[in-house]
Formats: sequence, C-alpha cells, structure tokens
Amino acid sequence: MRAEVITVGSELLLGETVDTHSAYLSRECFSLGVEVVFHTSVGDEQARLMETIERAHGRSQLVFLCGGLGPTLDDLTKETLSAFLRIPLIQDPVVVKHLERYFQGRSQNIPSNNYKQTYVFEGGVVFHNANGTAPGLAVSKEDVTYVLLPGPPRELIPMFEQQVRPFILATFSGGQAMVSEALSFFGIGESLLEETCKDLIQAYDNPIIATYAKEAGVTLRLTARAATELEARELIAPIKREVLKRAGDYCYSEQEEPLEEVVMRALIQHGKTIAVAESCTGGLLSHLFTSMAGSSQAFMGGVVSYSGFSKEKVVGVPEEVLKRYGTVSAQTAEALAEQVQTRFASDFALSVTGIAGPDEAEGKPVGLVFIGFKEASKPVRVYRLQLRGSRRRIQLQAAKQACFILQQRLKKGETTR
Amino acid sequence: MRAEVITVGSELLLGETVDTHSAYLSRECFSLGVEVVFHTSVGDEQARLMETIERAHGRSQLVFLCGGLGPTLDDLTKETLSAFLRIPLIQDPVVVKHLERYFQGRSQNIPSNNYKQTYVFEGGVVFHNANGTAPGLAVSKEDVTYVLLPGPPRELIPMFEQQVRPFILATFSGGQAMVSEALSFFGIGESLLEETCKDLIQAYDNPIIATYAKEAGVTLRLTARAATELEARELIAPIKREVLKRAGDYCYSEQEEPLEEVVMRALIQHGKTIAVAESCTGGLLSHLFTSMAGSSQAFMGGVVSYSGFSKEKVVGVPEEVLKRYGTVSAQTAEALAEQVQTRFASDFALSVTGIAGPDEAEGKPVGLVFIGFKEASKPVRVYRLQLRGSRRRIQLQAAKQACFILQQRLKKGETTR
Repeated sequence: MRAEVITVGSELLLGETVDTHSAYLSRECFSLGVEVVFHTSVGDEQARLMETIERAHGRSQLVFLCGGLGPTLDDLTKETLSAFLRIPLIQDPVVVKHLERYFQGRSQNIPSNNYKQTYVFEGGVVFHNANGTAPGLAVSKEDVTYVLLPGPPRELIPMFEQQVRPFILATFSGGQAMVSEALSFFGIGESLLEETCKDLIQAYDNPIIATYAKEAGVTLRLTARAATELEARELIAPIKREVLKRAGDYCYSEQEEPLEEVVMRALIQHGKTIAVAESCTGGLLSHLFTSMAGSSQAFMGGVVSYSGFSKEKVVGVPEEVLKRYGTVSAQTAEALAEQVQTRFASDFALSVTGIAGPDEAEGKPVGLVFIGFKEASKPVRVYRLQLRGSRRRIQLQAAKQACFILQQRLKKGETTR
Repeated sequence: MRAEVITVGSELLLGETVDTHSAYLSRECFSLGVEVVFHTSVGDEQARLMETIERAHGRSQLVFLCGGLGPTLDDLTKETLSAFLRIPLIQDPVVVKHLERYFQGRSQNIPSNNYKQTYVFEGGVVFHNANGTAPGLAVSKEDVTYVLLPGPPRELIPMFEQQVRPFILATFSGGQAMVSEALSFFGIGESLLEETCKDLIQAYDNPIIATYAKEAGVTLRLTARAATELEARELIAPIKREVLKRAGDYCYSEQEEPLEEVVMRALIQHGKTIAVAESCTGGLLSHLFTSMAGSSQAFMGGVVSYSGFSKEKVVGVPEEVLKRYGTVSAQTAEALAEQVQTRFASDFALSVTGIAGPDEAEGKPVGLVFIGFKEASKPVRVYRLQLRGSRRRIQLQAAKQACFILQQRLKKGETTR
C-alpha cells in the first residue's frame, strides 16, 4: 500500500518551520508496513493545494494532510479537499460541545470563527483533539483514504498515537510485519562498504539492504517484511551475519548511534576512566565525550595544548622532544598521552597532535595526525594517520579515529575476559 | 520568480532523516527575493523522481535537487535529470583531479564507483565541493534552471553560501542588481529583534528585511534590488543604520559569520592571546575557538576540568574553594580563570562552570552557569547565567556567551583606543 504526506502552511515554504511531521508519519507508517512514496509541502493557497491533492489521489491509497485546520481565513485544507472530493462539510454537534467546553474552562467567549472547526466530512471519521480545538478527520473516496491532522506537534502526535494508528490498522488490515535493523560502521567508506556487500544488495529485496553515509561513519540498514515480526527478524539474521563476517571489524554498534556514545557507555560499564590531550582537534574530542549525559562518570578531563608553550609547561612534554621531533610527531603524541594519564590519574589516555590545515607546518603535510593511546602500566601506542579534506573534516576524523581506537580496545577487553 | 525544492533519498521517506534542507534553501531564497512554492521529497526511485522533475519543470523557474549525488548505485538524481532534459553527462577533468587528490592523501585507492561523481552536465556549471567528493551542478533548459546539491549538510551549506548564492544572484537578477547584506546578533531573541524592527519590516519591501534564528544568535538580512549594485546598497544603507541604532548593542558582525570567528580575528588583530578552563562545556569552547584556521596565533590552549580532582590537581583551584562553594560557583569560576591565565601565560582567560543537565547537581538547578573573565593584571569578572533547554543547548549557549563577553571587551578596546 502506498501513502504520501502533504504538509500545508506558508511558514514551511518561507523556511520558518522545519517539517518534522513528514518524517514522524513516515516512521510510523513504515512500522505499520505502509510505504510512504512522497512528501509534499505546499502553502496556504487553494489552487496549489488542489493540484497537490489531485496528484496524490491518482497515485496513493492513503494521503495525510497536516495543517490548515485552524480557525482563520487562510486555513483551507478541509474546504479544499471537500471541493475536490465533492463531499460536503456538515456541523458535528459533538465537536461543537467539545469546543464550548474547551473555551468554558478558560472563561473565554468562543471567537465566532472557531465554529469553522466544528464542520466535518459527511460520512467521515472524526478524531477527538484532546489538546486543541481542531478535530482530526478521515474520509474516503474511490479507494483513497484521506487523514487530516492538526499542525501543532503536541496535537498531532497524541492524536496519531491514540486514534489514527488504530484506525489505519483497522482500515488497511492484511498488512505484514516490517522490521528494520541497523549496523554502524567506522573506518570504512560508504562506497567500499557497498562494494563489499554488492552481491548481497543486488541479490536480496527482502530484506532490503541499504547504506547511508553519516558525518563520520556509515550506517547499513536491513529491512524485511513477513507475516510476523519474528519471521521478519529471521529473514534479516543470516544476511546480517554475512555482512558482519565481511566487514565486522569496522562495525562498532548493532544500532544506529554515535561512536563516542558507544565508547562512553563501555567505559562506564567497565568502570574505567579516560583523559585526553588534544592539539589539532582543539577540544573536539573532549566535546564529543562530554556531549553524552552521565559522561562525568568516566571522563576525567583533558588539556587542549594548542601552543608549544602549553605542551611543555602545562602538560609537561619534555622540551627536547618538542625541539628534536616537533609538536606533530609520534614522540610528542607519546609524551602527551603519558603525561595526561598521570596528571588526571585515569585508566586510559588519548592524545591527538596533527596538522588540521589549511596550511602545512613544521614541513609536514596537512592531515598528518598522530594519536597516542595509553593504558595504565603499559607503554603508549602511537597511530599515524594521513587525513584529507577541510580543516573541520580533519578535526572530526581525527577525533572519531581516537574514539575508534579506544572502542576497539574496549571490545577486545570484552572478548578476552 | 518561482522556485521549488526537491529532496531525494529513501531515508527521508522512511522517516530516518528530517528534511532540513528545504527550510534552509527556502529561507535563503526568500532573502534573495525568490518565492518557493513547493517542497517535495522522493525516494531513490527513478520513475517517481522523473515524475517529480517533470511537474517542477512545468511550474517553476528554479528547481533545487538535493541528494542522490553519491557514488553508489542508488544515487540517480543526476542521471535522471540528464535523461529528462536530454542533456548528456560528460567527465570533467577538474573534478577527476579533485577526486584523485581527495583519495591520494588518504593512501586509499579510489573505489571505481566514485568516478561516477566526475560526470557533469554538458554546458552546465560545476560547484566545487570543498567537503566531499560530489560536486554541485547547475544546468538550464527551456527557462528552467536546475541546481543539484549534495545531501550532507556540511557539504551543501558551505557550497550554497560560497558558490550557489552568488550564482543565483547573477542568474536571476532580471537585468537588475540584487544585493543582500546581513547583520549578526547575539544575546537578543529572534522575536524581540523582529519586534524591535517591526515597523521597518512592514514598511519596506525594497529592501526586504527578514530575521533568521540560528543555532545560537540571530541573523537579520536586508535584500534590495535596483538598476545598479551601488543603488541597491544605497537603498539598504539607511535602513541598516536604523536597525543598528535600535539593536546595535547585540550586533557582533556586519556579515553572516559565527561569533567565535569574529572574536578570534579580533584577538589576532590586537595581538592578544586567550586560554580557557571548561567544566560544563566540556571542550566545546576550545573547539569553537580552534575551528578557525589560524587560531593558533591567539589560542594558547585550555583545560577541560570535568572532575573535581582535575579542577584541584590539574588547574589548581584551592581545595577549600571547591569544598565551601562547590564546583558550580562564582568562586570556582574565578579561581579557574585566574589559574588558567597564569598557567598558559595568556592575555585573557575565560572559565565556564555550570550544570548542563539533564540532572541537577550540588542542589543547583540545570542551566545554572558561571563564566569567569580574566584580563592580565585585573581582577576576574564573573557572570551568572540561568540557561534553558537541552544539555546540548545549554553547552552551546554557555560557550557562545563566553565568546560574547570577550567580543564585547575587544569591541570596547577598539573604540577607546
């Protein structure tokens, strides 16, 4: 079954409001086994709205119309659909009573234009609005069902959950269960991951296998349909195992989530702490670790040693190391990790020093990055990277790579315990 | 002139990604005097994309297509438009070179499917992608211009700002000059700024005056059309002066740019240096300062003292201050700023300590933040804030407020010299 979402309101086309309803309803439809094929946003303008409805009528069986159910003159969703379907609007005494009670409780007179909201489709369905004055509506003609919902999220979402979802299940039964599972990867590009799984992607359409490039990392999603949820999961399981067999080294989570959160959670679970010394990432690594609530349990702190002076005087990197090897060197990364682990008395320490660009320095190229990883009572391990792209990208990749090194260590710890 | 935005990607129709590009491009178009009349989201599916393009072709003069420019099999925006317009795609040697440089530095071979991204419209325009491998493209036929942009926001937004906005201004001025000037504000909400300038916004349509809430701060944009660029600027000048007369205290730049860049530039110009001590912002303030190229000239470094231990042992806040007043206190903010300025030997120092949430601490409410500002040989000034919103928002607002305090100081310095 095909569905589409039409959101109505000039504020959308002026860019004042970001349309979140289309994504919300699409997620909900997906979990009900309903495929959403289009989202359209259109202004409070009758001719363009009519054109949009007409198009939807020809290609979908379920059409959501969000917004334009208010009391004012420019709210015309219901009126336009009524004109298109040639189904009249009639006053609903139950809605009138609700409206009167709504204003009574607020000791206000009912503005006369609010009565516009008491008109509903003849022969249609009315969804009571517990959080506002505009009822939701459903009406069908020629095998197309329209569901009209009020624009404000705090009205639309509870109405959907309590009344519209059961309505859709009852109206469009015979739907199958649909299940979607994600794998999160780092250290492998989207195209390489796709190439690694190309034969699977091409061979299967249930589950559907799709990759999505994130700001750092790649998500692979497997989506299956079957008679029951269990059967759908059973369709996914063997393909997922095969993907992990091929690219599991790069998979940091069997959910869609940021790498730093996986690391932070693992640290907290193991009761371990981390401290960092950052040069070229300039605080970004600390920021990633501390963006998660509860990170203070594991994150002891860090030093952003942006100048040679601070590397020497604040962190305590020996002057001779800085002089002999430069601030961007394996030796400096080693000393930074060593020092910061001692100073913050943490279990682990990470250091990052490199050249974020745009200009090279110390005769070393933009994108050269050294990451030091220290584990109490073990020698520091140093990793050398050559990253590409903008300054921002180099900083992000370097910080995420540091997270990945720690994550790999924590993962290994899990399996060897 | 009418425009519309088409976003392409199955992740949109699955509800995994909220479409923010349509709102972004609509705001930008509005400020350029271009009316956006439809947003459409469509999946990675050629027949439906073709249908969407065909419809747009018949009713708009400018069509944005976002996403579907990646290297993989399901990226087919460019190919579908090429088939619809019957304009061939040809390999662009400049894009090939960019792609090769991009992968070279990563010591990776170019996955063969990435070469797909080097094909551009014959006779079209190519927008260089500084942050990824997919170039932006523009092509015109039958008085309709298509602008194709890569899906990731960190690629799309800089590309729009640096290359597409000037392209649109040059292509659609209709013989007239169109000029757009921005003012950047901090510390005043969008609605208050709008109210302050309401009579101007209502009285003028040349220049158009529009406000946009940013993640932190507000931008006000004035866009004028006239026979020449000079005349357009002359239309803007008196209105701009009037806006600055009313709200100039909150204006930190007469361009659209991040606050931290203005601060960093001013520090470099004055030959001054800064160091920071961060608690609740967890490295974000350092990250903001170091995201600008050249920041090492002025940013000496910082300490992220996330634990009480590190505040005492690493930064040197006296134990009695922490015990008596707590880590979130004016006294701790003062000691942090004092200590970090000494340790990094900087001209200025900022400290931030507070409760980012989600839970309160030390019996103090979420959002309580103290910022210390130290200037060599002067006592520390401490500012107390009560911020609202999510953890992420509190961290961002606190870090930006610290920037604003420094910016105000540097601005004062300029005028009293």
